[in-house]
Amino acid sequence: MHIHLYCKLINSADSCVDEALCGLVRASGGLSLLKGHRVVLRSDPDNLRGKVALLSGGGSGHEPAHGGYVGAGMLSAAVAGGVFASPPPASVLAAILSLHSAGASGVLLIVKNYTGDRLNFGLAAEQARNHGVAVDMVIVAEDCAFDQPSKAGRRGLCGTIFIHKLAGALAEEGCSLDQIVSKVTEVLKGIGTLGVSLSPCSVPGCLPSFELPPGDMELGLGIHGEAGIKRSKVASADEVVKTMMDHMTNPDSQSHLPLKSGDSVVVCVNNLGALSCLELAVVTRAAIVCLESRGVVVARVMSGSFMTSLEMAGVSLTLMRADQETLRLFDAKTSAPAWPNLSSQCVSGRGYITDPQAVSTRPQDDAPVMRKALEKVCSTLLEKQEELNSLDRAGGDGDCGNTHAQAARAVQEWLQDHVVPGCPGRLLSVLAGLVQEKMGGSSGALYSLFLTAAAGHVTEGRSNAAAWASAVHAGTQAMRRCVAVCLDALCPAVDELMTLTTAPPGGQMAVLQAAVQRAASGAESTRNLTARAGRASYVAAERVTLPDPGAVAVAAILRAVLESLEGKK
Amino acid sequence: MHIHLYCKLINSADSCVDEALCGLVRASGGLSLLKGHRVVLRSDPDNLRGKVALLSGGGSGHEPAHGGYVGAGMLSAAVAGGVFASPPPASVLAAILSLHSAGASGVLLIVKNYTGDRLNFGLAAEQARNHGVAVDMVIVAEDCAFDQPSKAGRRGLCGTIFIHKLAGALAEEGCSLDQIVSKVTEVLKGIGTLGVSLSPCSVPGCLPSFELPPGDMELGLGIHGEAGIKRSKVASADEVVKTMMDHMTNPDSQSHLPLKSGDSVVVCVNNLGALSCLELAVVTRAAIVCLESRGVVVARVMSGSFMTSLEMAGVSLTLMRADQETLRLFDAKTSAPAWPNLSSQCVSGRGYITDPQAVSTRPQDDAPVMRKALEKVCSTLLEKQEELNSLDRAGGDGDCGNTHAQAARAVQEWLQDHVVPGCPGRLLSVLAGLVQEKMGGSSGALYSLFLTAAAGHVTEGRSNAAAWASAVHAGTQAMRRCVAVCLDALCPAVDELMTLTTAPPGGQMAVLQAAVQRAASGAESTRNLTARAGRASYVAAERVTLPDPGAVAVAAILRAVLESLEGKK
Repeated sequence: MHIHLYCKLINSADSCVDEALCGLVRASGGLSLLKGHRVVLRSDPDNLRGKVALLSGGGSGHEPAHGGYVGAGMLSAAVAGGVFASPPPASVLAAILSLHSAGASGVLLIVKNYTGDRLNFGLAAEQARNHGVAVDMVIVAEDCAFDQPSKAGRRGLCGTIFIHKLAGALAEEGCSLDQIVSKVTEVLKGIGTLGVSLSPCSVPGCLPSFELPPGDMELGLGIHGEAGIKRSKVASADEVVKTMMDHMTNPDSQSHLPLKSGDSVVVCVNNLGALSCLELAVVTRAAIVCLESRGVVVARVMSGSFMTSLEMAGVSLTLMRADQETLRLFDAKTSAPAWPNLSSQCVSGRGYITDPQAVSTRPQDDAPVMRKALEKVCSTLLEKQEELNSLDRAGGDGDCGNTHAQAARAVQEWLQDHVVPGCPGRLLSVLAGLVQEKMGGSSGALYSLFLTAAAGHVTEGRSNAAAWASAVHAGTQAMRRCVAVCLDALCPAVDELMTLTTAPPGGQMAVLQAAVQRAASGAESTRNLTARAGRASYVAAERVTLPDPGAVAVAAILRAVLESLEGKK
Repeated sequence: MHIHLYCKLINSADSCVDEALCGLVRASGGLSLLKGHRVVLRSDPDNLRGKVALLSGGGSGHEPAHGGYVGAGMLSAAVAGGVFASPPPASVLAAILSLHSAGASGVLLIVKNYTGDRLNFGLAAEQARNHGVAVDMVIVAEDCAFDQPSKAGRRGLCGTIFIHKLAGALAEEGCSLDQIVSKVTEVLKGIGTLGVSLSPCSVPGCLPSFELPPGDMELGLGIHGEAGIKRSKVASADEVVKTMMDHMTNPDSQSHLPLKSGDSVVVCVNNLGALSCLELAVVTRAAIVCLESRGVVVARVMSGSFMTSLEMAGVSLTLMRADQETLRLFDAKTSAPAWPNLSSQCVSGRGYITDPQAVSTRPQDDAPVMRKALEKVCSTLLEKQEELNSLDRAGGDGDCGNTHAQAARAVQEWLQDHVVPGCPGRLLSVLAGLVQEKMGGSSGALYSLFLTAAAGHVTEGRSNAAAWASAVHAGTQAMRRCVAVCLDALCPAVDELMTLTTAPPGGQMAVLQAAVQRAASGAESTRNLTARAGRASYVAAERVTLPDPGAVAVAAILRAVLESLEGKK
């Protein structure tokens, strides 16, 4: 049933780890691969001289961990095992010796609490000591899932990257091995992580790690698809986050994170693999809101894919209690490619809402000529509603008459309650807003675009025939700039109207009549065209034998304006 | 069948866009929300004074686009619509006016080529011009999918973020609106994108956008789940990338990207949402290798989630031809939270393999006492293979005898071909390597750990009984540091052996005999223990009534050593 989950975009299950490491290293100028090993190293080993080097690693399938955290200010090297498998001690040792020979004053191993990793890193550490290397090891075990952890202790999860970051900053500053161990050991007491997932994940070439029925979620799982502590129906993001926070901080659990009002925390909202970024951002908001509702100060938030479980559709939350010194180390620069571009502003207490600019308006006098023209246009469009719909059914979705009628009714309503401004440009802007809001869709946007662009050309001081001609011309150009739209009725009419600039005062109505005639012919000519834009353009390349309803509408609008002006005389 | 895809970690389909924007903005100190609109703004508007402001946006569901690209050196603001829906012109206008009032010298709209976006941004641009704002608009249309694009033109995809970046760098440098438009218009000719997906995506509250049978992939799809150009079986990552590159650069296609040997490109490997980071890295490698095989110089690579389609399990490749000036702008700093931590080193031509340190070895003389002891240990373990297996079946996976036998045979083989070194520490190191490699698993790592830690305490110049006592003590401590392991046979024996430091020369064998005796009793005492570490610790809490096979093995090994030493006398 879920078989598509097994299908992966790789070359082979055997090669995927090496190829992924190669992809990471090749794309990142600061990284290098240790020949013969799955070890990612800083490509600037000279900068390690005299400083403590940091080495971490573990199974693959958690990308960008751990190779993505190699760089100045974070790890000096990372060792990868197979997917969800601990790396061999020989590779850990090779990495340690490489860092030692680069001149590092000591090597700190940062290891997630899994038996295999502890053994293999521990073994390599002993071997390295026999080679005269000063080595120490810190174990990250910050999982908050189990009320009573097994004898193997709490698991190491995404909180590990906080240790990479803080230890990295300390090492960069020149701290000694002991100083770094002492600081991160202290910090580790204030870190807790809990995960939740809506799907399992599958190791390349294998079946999913566990079954999870659609609509269920599993709380407290590990990063290797180990089953969690509780299964339930998927709740809302806010509820899920609250459940997680409650569990993580519950003093009845042996593995809880002590957290009280007034504490300051760094939060990591970690995509376990396949959660959409939209969902991740929703969870991020929920985490901030939930913590603040408890009086906790959210100092920093990182949100993204940091310690994944292949394509698991889930999220883990990591909290780290942080004083000013911890924040200073957290904010320090790093060149590690997977570290995000974070701000060093405190999240809680920051104003994050900006007020918009008010758009000024002022009272107007009514302009009867324009009111009359508008009334005529509206009644015409309402009369033609069915005709336009029926034309539209041939090539579109049959609602062209409806959308025009909608606009007409909106304008009619507006006319009842408002003074028509004497400045034509202002009226056109109002109409633009009305059709944009009430007509909607592409048609609304197009008419609105025309009206808006035209508006700037007819002002209170300049609204003669020539001004109107340049206004309709500008409106037409604006539409053309935005989309390849069918303007077969409008364009010939506008061409005609442009002669208004030179026409004598008595000849203006004749020009308008000619323009209306050209619009009508233009609309008629669309019988032999295929649609060029809008929904109809995707439908069919076959010829439409009825005229384009949009063109017919434009011709009708122009005729209505003409008739209202003629009637006025 | 795919119903679990519809289940999302959100609060509601209606609220998810606003909450996601809130999550982004709250987590990012450099961002702010425009009240009443889905607009993300820089929180430092004062820094826009006198510079060109950049505004982009479009439908939601593409996170981190576009809000994540707001920051110094990239966008000044981003407007979001509903999921896969164009933002309303009123919000675009509000954003423009806000930038204008902050003192921006002009506003450039960067718009993906979709009819709705063109219309709504175009309309707002006209309205803004009527308010006296200097506005211009560039349309990004870099999709390489269709050989013959529709009249609406090529779609705008992930290449948009390259324009955000380059225009952002130019604006930051103080370039004019015209200069920026001119540069990005030129750059746009050299950008192409193509996507492929192994799954559809679903808008919150809706069914998936299209059906894709398990094991199939769809080439050339848009970022709104629009169907692509070709469907086929999922091929290997290398083949898929080659197919994509062939299609993108095929001169027979009207929408191809002209690319020839010697060209320099920036590559964006974009996760469409739910591809695992492991797969993404594999595709990243494939893209670099494929381009280099064509003689193309890969200047920069960015790999991650940049322009997603909700939870689509797919990837898009964007290529941008880049000269030195383009690279300079690409490398410029930005505080935009979604921009990755990139290196400015050229990808192609960079050496990325480091040679490991050689571990020195030197020739040895054979040490007959140690050879004899080893031979005895090996034969003992082989004799006990079935006994240990049968003990292990009670609480473990029944292979304890097999793994010990494996180690024993490996040591036997090694003894045939090698001189036993006179320095005991060196021998222990060799044995550590052998069991680590040949025994494998937790047992191999534990023995190896013991041997390695012990090795440092018995050197050529210091290998008397007291030295051996501290060696086994150090080995035991090393195991304890790494895991909470059952050492019921070893610890009492080591306690006894520690008396060797003070025992008179004649009393040493008696101490050894007592130690072997205590190991045997210790092993016997494990009948009443539950397993504490390793696989058995996860199996059952019920009491095991047989002795622990590991403890029995340790006791047997010690007895074998004793017997070989007694036999020697």
